[in-house]
Amino acid sequence: MSTSDMVLVSIAEIRSIAQSALAKSGCDAENAAAVAGVMAAAERDGCASHGLFRLAGYLASLRSGKVNGTARPSVARLAPSVLQVDGHGGFAPLAMSLARDALAPLAREQGVAAAALVNVHHFSALWVDIEPLVQSGLVALCVTAYMPMVAPAGARKPFFGTNPMAFGWPRRGGETMIFDQASAAMARGEIMIAARDGHQLPPGVGIDAKGTPTTDPAEILKGAQLPFGGYKGSAIALMVELLAAGLIGQPFSFEAGAQDNQDGGPPRGGYFLLAFDPARFGDAEGWLAHAESLFQHLAGLEGVRLPGDRRAQNRARIASHGARLPAKLWEEAVRAAGAHPGRSRG
Amino acid sequence: MSTSDMVLVSIAEIRSIAQSALAKSGCDAENAAAVAGVMAAAERDGCASHGLFRLAGYLASLRSGKVNGTARPSVARLAPSVLQVDGHGGFAPLAMSLARDALAPLAREQGVAAAALVNVHHFSALWVDIEPLVQSGLVALCVTAYMPMVAPAGARKPFFGTNPMAFGWPRRGGETMIFDQASAAMARGEIMIAARDGHQLPPGVGIDAKGTPTTDPAEILKGAQLPFGGYKGSAIALMVELLAAGLIGQPFSFEAGAQDNQDGGPPRGGYFLLAFDPARFGDAEGWLAHAESLFQHLAGLEGVRLPGDRRAQNRARIASHGARLPAKLWEEAVRAAGAHPGRSRG
Repeated sequence: MSTSDMVLVSIAEIRSIAQSALAKSGCDAENAAAVAGVMAAAERDGCASHGLFRLAGYLASLRSGKVNGTARPSVARLAPSVLQVDGHGGFAPLAMSLARDALAPLAREQGVAAAALVNVHHFSALWVDIEPLVQSGLVALCVTAYMPMVAPAGARKPFFGTNPMAFGWPRRGGETMIFDQASAAMARGEIMIAARDGHQLPPGVGIDAKGTPTTDPAEILKGAQLPFGGYKGSAIALMVELLAAGLIGQPFSFEAGAQDNQDGGPPRGGYFLLAFDPARFGDAEGWLAHAESLFQHLAGLEGVRLPGDRRAQNRARIASHGARLPAKLWEEAVRAAGAHPGRSRG
Repeated sequence: MSTSDMVLVSIAEIRSIAQSALAKSGCDAENAAAVAGVMAAAERDGCASHGLFRLAGYLASLRSGKVNGTARPSVARLAPSVLQVDGHGGFAPLAMSLARDALAPLAREQGVAAAALVNVHHFSALWVDIEPLVQSGLVALCVTAYMPMVAPAGARKPFFGTNPMAFGWPRRGGETMIFDQASAAMARGEIMIAARDGHQLPPGVGIDAKGTPTTDPAEILKGAQLPFGGYKGSAIALMVELLAAGLIGQPFSFEAGAQDNQDGGPPRGGYFLLAFDPARFGDAEGWLAHAESLFQHLAGLEGVRLPGDRRAQNRARIASHGARLPAKLWEEAVRAAGAHPGRSRG
């Protein structure tokens, strides 16, 4: 795509337009704000695949009636260290916010605590979900399943979801180290964007519908993605299915795929979130400085970049310059919001 | 190695000889039995790299005085859902047994609970550590760091340990699904055995001391192993460092390497263990059958084998036929035990 097809938009404008579009399609104000917030956060951090690119899917799932845009999540305590947050068929962000608010004090009280999110429609980046917990000084781990997209190691058909996992560690001054990675070799959103833009992919990302390896993103979308790292990544994907679905009574990816109406929006499913208070594990005084020494040694190795470093750089740059979006994507969002496009070209 | 260099030995004999050898080198009866038990379990399951092959390292670390063969682990409750088990500088197996005994009822009470093992010397297979918890109906996850062996993605020098992770899920009738995998592309024990036997390795396992990719196991042992799956496996290795060391106040792999006396035995370090009671996560009645449906669909895909399937097959075969060991390895163990070799050749 040439730069003349791109526009430069501030994060506040992206959030505002997304919020209006969601509200026009059936979200109440709180849900619209929460969902627009996770898309804006992805754009702010330079992650196009989880940014405004997702708006069409969110809107489709409201229009089809699959997702309840006015759902109010509720929280229940299933065991001393276990919460269940029921999204009641709404989008995940509002339920996630409630889960964080309830989980943080519980993790501080118990040392470790879990939140099982059920009946949510999740479609966004995981680091956005856990960053507030990590900024507050907690260690966090989260996983979610999806719909069948990834062939287990040895197989030639999709069965696992892309099954992302994120892990976050608190650093000084509210800084964080968060990695967020699909169990698939590549995030599905990136493959969709490559297909849209006509780019080839590196080998190892996926296979076509006959099970033959290919670098054509369109063929992979009709075939199957591959797990990262062969059978070991496949085992991680299986663990994600078991935690985000099996443990908490939610559909596995293969079940979610069968139940979904294929409107292009997120399926209904579960999400598993764990938080640990590092002050309760035996090194309350030392853990922060100790981990900093690890990060310093690691970042000091030639060729190494800490997880999240590129995201932090993007955030600083985009905060001052705005996000560069495909003009067509922005115009569609503006149209969905019932507003008038008037952005300066980037 | 030709079959004439191999001997066939029963698991009971392996356990007995290992136990005698450990007792002769300074373990008390309980520690000797616990350590011999984990080596025998690895041989029973067909995992040579964590079986009697490890005896020499265990004995060396007793002789050097690095490990206290008569240590008695102790347990403390750091928070409502967090235990600390202190190995007081002994081998891990006795501390692990205490951790399991204390963690299982706590996980049932709290829904989720963690055990931080500190000041242990761990040298064995992780599936052996969690299998009793999983057989008792709990979901378990464990990780441990080691000494610097693995180059982080992009780096050319060892920094992470091999950093294994195991995850287990209970199945009907006390059966289990457990995967146990190093964050390295290949377990170090397998590379050591390939070097011993003069075998080449597949590409992607490691680099030589100059940072150049190689398939020669001896060169990799002098250089660095590589993580599985590139930067994603490297992120998993980082998470293991943070949980098994940073969170619980124990040395990172790079610190353990600097502290270790290089006697060939296990370094002193930490071990992180989590247990979940699936009856406390919202699907007490359904979780077992639900997960079985996942396993059945997965195993029904052409080309797929469930994690742990080969281990179960090995176990059935070796229980009736015995384990096939290099004759030299067996003779050295027998000699260390002060017994007389008299096994029939396999």
